[in-house]
Amino acid sequence: MHLKRSAIALAIMLLSGIGYTQAQTAPLEDFKPSSFNQPFQQYPQVNSQGYARFRIYAPNADSVRVSLGLGGQGGTKLTKADSGYFIGTTAGPMDEGFHYYHVNVDGATFNDPGTGFFYGSQRWESGIEIPAKDQDFYALKDVPHGNMQQILFPSKSTNTSRAAFVYTPPGYEDGKTKYPVLYLQHGWGENETTWGIQGKANLIMDNMIAEGRIKPFIVVMTYGMTNTGSRPGGNRPRPATNNAPPDTTRRAGGPSGGPGGFGGNIAATNGFQAVLLDELIPYVDAHFRTIAKRDGRAMAGLSMGGAETKGITLAKPEVFGYWGLLSGGNYTPADLEGKMKPKFMFISYGSKEANGANALPKVEADLKAAGYNVTTYVSPGTAHEFQSWRRSLYQMAPQLFK
Amino acid sequence: MHLKRSAIALAIMLLSGIGYTQAQTAPLEDFKPSSFNQPFQQYPQVNSQGYARFRIYAPNADSVRVSLGLGGQGGTKLTKADSGYFIGTTAGPMDEGFHYYHVNVDGATFNDPGTGFFYGSQRWESGIEIPAKDQDFYALKDVPHGNMQQILFPSKSTNTSRAAFVYTPPGYEDGKTKYPVLYLQHGWGENETTWGIQGKANLIMDNMIAEGRIKPFIVVMTYGMTNTGSRPGGNRPRPATNNAPPDTTRRAGGPSGGPGGFGGNIAATNGFQAVLLDELIPYVDAHFRTIAKRDGRAMAGLSMGGAETKGITLAKPEVFGYWGLLSGGNYTPADLEGKMKPKFMFISYGSKEANGANALPKVEADLKAAGYNVTTYVSPGTAHEFQSWRRSLYQMAPQLFK
Repeated sequence: MHLKRSAIALAIMLLSGIGYTQAQTAPLEDFKPSSFNQPFQQYPQVNSQGYARFRIYAPNADSVRVSLGLGGQGGTKLTKADSGYFIGTTAGPMDEGFHYYHVNVDGATFNDPGTGFFYGSQRWESGIEIPAKDQDFYALKDVPHGNMQQILFPSKSTNTSRAAFVYTPPGYEDGKTKYPVLYLQHGWGENETTWGIQGKANLIMDNMIAEGRIKPFIVVMTYGMTNTGSRPGGNRPRPATNNAPPDTTRRAGGPSGGPGGFGGNIAATNGFQAVLLDELIPYVDAHFRTIAKRDGRAMAGLSMGGAETKGITLAKPEVFGYWGLLSGGNYTPADLEGKMKPKFMFISYGSKEANGANALPKVEADLKAAGYNVTTYVSPGTAHEFQSWRRSLYQMAPQLFK
Repeated sequence: MHLKRSAIALAIMLLSGIGYTQAQTAPLEDFKPSSFNQPFQQYPQVNSQGYARFRIYAPNADSVRVSLGLGGQGGTKLTKADSGYFIGTTAGPMDEGFHYYHVNVDGATFNDPGTGFFYGSQRWESGIEIPAKDQDFYALKDVPHGNMQQILFPSKSTNTSRAAFVYTPPGYEDGKTKYPVLYLQHGWGENETTWGIQGKANLIMDNMIAEGRIKPFIVVMTYGMTNTGSRPGGNRPRPATNNAPPDTTRRAGGPSGGPGGFGGNIAATNGFQAVLLDELIPYVDAHFRTIAKRDGRAMAGLSMGGAETKGITLAKPEVFGYWGLLSGGNYTPADLEGKMKPKFMFISYGSKEANGANALPKVEADLKAAGYNVTTYVSPGTAHEFQSWRRSLYQMAPQLFK
């Protein structure tokens, strides 16, 4: 009887649309092009409620779907119009911030010709930006701008030149000041371009510096996907032109000349720790005006980059004074026992990463009880996506290098 | 009778395949992934003769074509295999160097999921690299590397922040030396990322400096598509998030967050000259260690960028000492009459740009007869494409700033 009542309740809920209340309401017709669209491209669009609308020209296709939609619905199915365009709107508002997606046309996967390209899932994917109420902190404003520069640093352990992006704060090039450095890592399937493009790390930094929220520091972002197996020819210098023969080995790497990559090539190797500690940090300290000691160094990462941060900071606690895990696990007193104490730890999740977010109060309490300096943060209404990490950077940054 | 004989000759030629000798010969089966492919992607491929082979997964499509092929054949039609892949090879070898293309699936246009993305035709397009016999000069080598950095400079004339890329030579960040600056412009439909990605300008510079072919200089590349009409809202600051309402006005601009663009936004305006001379050059001179005078400044551009170079150098001959037109028109003694003399002019074409290339000896002779210092160059076996311009940069650079 209990079961039966539940079944009836569920049926009523489904019929009355409780599961997708928003889906039953027509979205407001104030759609505008996504901010991440290519120049001149009017689709995809977003409305003021956060609905996304897609349009794909495919005059002879039978079926076009977009991989983005509401959870559990398998994306958004577009409907064909007489014009040859398929068009469709998400069943409800999307979470604020950036979302990756791609298009399926009669079973074939392509990018949406309307959007820019964003490296994730080991591919350049399509992406859409749902305006957030707090988007001001990563907006491009009329404030002094730092520079994002691509460096190619020599790596003996991988026998190649490797790419990294370095954010230097406004005034860096004119002055003599030495700056602390945050080493900031991307997640699985992403690369050294990700924090700058999807994450808007440079704009977040510009704005925080302009507001006086932080003292200026340098941010270094490199490719951290070093655990996907070595690639053929890894023991000889790899030119940017990757002309290795076809093979079934996963060839980890950033763009070999694609977007965001000015000739940077990345050879995979086991040993991101060696690349970071023995090669990248010495290169950065030699070529930039850095505070080249523990108190002038932070490491943080999102997701897999958080796992890398945890592993490296615990293995070499003397290198970094400030440690940050963004949706990338927790530190516990047991992890830290007997080690050189970090000056500060930051741990964060999106609220929709329920397990991580719900456990955070205890994680923080345990660490504080054991005498550690830690701050935790939960990004409201976001999941394992970039809005959580943009906000985490904004929350973490003022607490670094104190 | 003459006509008839011609017709017969033509028929014989067609039947015997004289027009496409190469097409009748099976290409060598030594295909390798194009160097511009995304990581892990095995197609498109190129063989040692310069044939390109494409493969697109489209299990339910009827027709897949690639816009690249041999002139006059309308690209390459792919053939469906049982696997669901369409596959096809160009009818003959392609010219050496970089080529843009896209894919047509049953009448819909997409990018090839295998390649990186390259801004051209006012879109991010697919691209393929045909290895060239002289590719060594733009290879990524184990030499000191300069940095490519994105700057966002304030522009009062467009009331926005505008993006440029600045190449600084190896050693720049450690030293006190002041450097001359080459302002280097892209062609129609391209943007500030183009010279670095398609053009490999940073690698060409690195290699020339390592070889002692040139003394180090800075290269500045900004967006020059300022003649496509103003965009709505152009009189207020434009955030990187372009959320202007849909409109039919062409919105000129670089990627508003896509590849290569860390938040840079570009508002269109008439008046590239004002942006360049009144805004970008003062910004660069204020923020980089430049030789901030005519003898320390060069301007060059390809195609439309050549036309811009010609217009600006003739209008303001006192700003730049060295002037370069790459597949972008010629200077004549009449153009130059009564003006402040350039210290040096460089004019080049690809050999397959027959009109331009064939006229060059007279262009050069006329200028020399009138007392000007000019060098001309023809890139062998290339057309209005990037291999001509990579080579032109390599030929021009040693003659600048002397």
